[in-house]
Amino acid sequence: RKGTGFGLWYSGDGGHHLCCSIPLSSLIKTSGLKLRFCTNETQATREKFVKKLQGMGFDISVDEVTAPAPAACRILKERSLRPHLLVHNDLVPEFAEIDKANPNCVVIGDAAENFTYANLNEAFRVLIGMEKPVLISLGRGRYYKETDGLKLDVGAYMKALEYACDVQAEVVGKPAKMFFESALAEMGVPPQQAIMIGDDIVNDVGGAQRCGMRALQVRTGKYRPCDENHPHVKPDAYVNNLAEAVDIILQQL
Amino acid sequence: RKGTGFGLWYSGDGGHHLCCSIPLSSLIKTSGLKLRFCTNETQATREKFVKKLQGMGFDISVDEVTAPAPAACRILKERSLRPHLLVHNDLVPEFAEIDKANPNCVVIGDAAENFTYANLNEAFRVLIGMEKPVLISLGRGRYYKETDGLKLDVGAYMKALEYACDVQAEVVGKPAKMFFESALAEMGVPPQQAIMIGDDIVNDVGGAQRCGMRALQVRTGKYRPCDENHPHVKPDAYVNNLAEAVDIILQQL
Repeated sequence: RKGTGFGLWYSGDGGHHLCCSIPLSSLIKTSGLKLRFCTNETQATREKFVKKLQGMGFDISVDEVTAPAPAACRILKERSLRPHLLVHNDLVPEFAEIDKANPNCVVIGDAAENFTYANLNEAFRVLIGMEKPVLISLGRGRYYKETDGLKLDVGAYMKALEYACDVQAEVVGKPAKMFFESALAEMGVPPQQAIMIGDDIVNDVGGAQRCGMRALQVRTGKYRPCDENHPHVKPDAYVNNLAEAVDIILQQL
Repeated sequence: RKGTGFGLWYSGDGGHHLCCSIPLSSLIKTSGLKLRFCTNETQATREKFVKKLQGMGFDISVDEVTAPAPAACRILKERSLRPHLLVHNDLVPEFAEIDKANPNCVVIGDAAENFTYANLNEAFRVLIGMEKPVLISLGRGRYYKETDGLKLDVGAYMKALEYACDVQAEVVGKPAKMFFESALAEMGVPPQQAIMIGDDIVNDVGGAQRCGMRALQVRTGKYRPCDENHPHVKPDAYVNNLAEAVDIILQQL
């Protein structure tokens, strides 16, 4: 699905940090580097996400994952916001501890089948009824591919509500600077000592670089040859796949 | 619903022309003025729209109505476009004569209940599969009010597809200049001799003025007091209601 996730790889001696999106996580960790997985997944809780990756052979636990929903929860608590949720059913447990009575903002995620006409109208009515509408979006992706074809992502529905309410959404998740900063803070690592590895030229590479990190693009997954001519974003290096990225970084330790 | 419609009122001697949105149509016509109803209604055929207005006491026939769907049909024919329709079921008959096989564009209207997740994904796939996506939108309204509450209008869903496909929709209907020009051409009247009456500051008043017409805003329907401080659009005059507009224009004949 959507750029499944990646990690930050960290050597305690102030060396490199790495963000990756496929296994090899054990190899990284045994080298004494810190690793973190950052995902824009909002169709499932972190628990479910981690189980899926464990099933694929990843050495990963829930507290190694940076994801949009917990980041949104922090914002909601800090600003005493009570959300109306327009999200996937499987994501709702992430908001279990959040007061949702008498909502004063809308949180939109990749709600998939929950993006019904009725649900969109309902979220819209909550926003338009506010003096200053607050819309928090768990990502700004345009679309993604599933086995049964391309699907509109949360960004498209975010734009619909933005236009209808004449408001600008606050985006949580990649490529938001604050999202990468959270991941770094959770590891206790400065951006100069971290390396991001991802397949998405804008969300992974561009977002990390804007935050002061270096970033490698893997030529797998979402990668397209035309990414190498991107008008604004240039990775620090290309690698053919994650294994190659890990090799290079381990060699330089 | 959405600025139900209005008309162009025309005196054959090169006098005034009027756009209105409620009855009084008989009074106007018997004064020798030409009248035309311009609507952004895309939830019904013109036939259905006219029947509804006749039921409310309007003297109106189908050939006096300028509406987005027939305007879109003209564009489709001129440019040999075969649409994938994302519209209300009741609007489909307006496209009866249009070839819809192997679509090379998408036409979006206020599809209401047809704005399902599946239908939006399907329209998106048609667009993203094209080398240069063509999206034709029957209006750009943000929202409107129905008896059971506010509803997102076609403009919101248009924005979602625009963002997902990185494309700009071609908007048919008010406030598009071409839409007003069609209405004028259908009456055989130059813009300088036409007056628009409407309740929507942007779609009715702004659109007509950009086309060289004068425009009155009625202080009824969609009108809001804050419209009188609109940053870009200023009507040629305000009237308290349509009856007052008709009075003033008849007096000046």
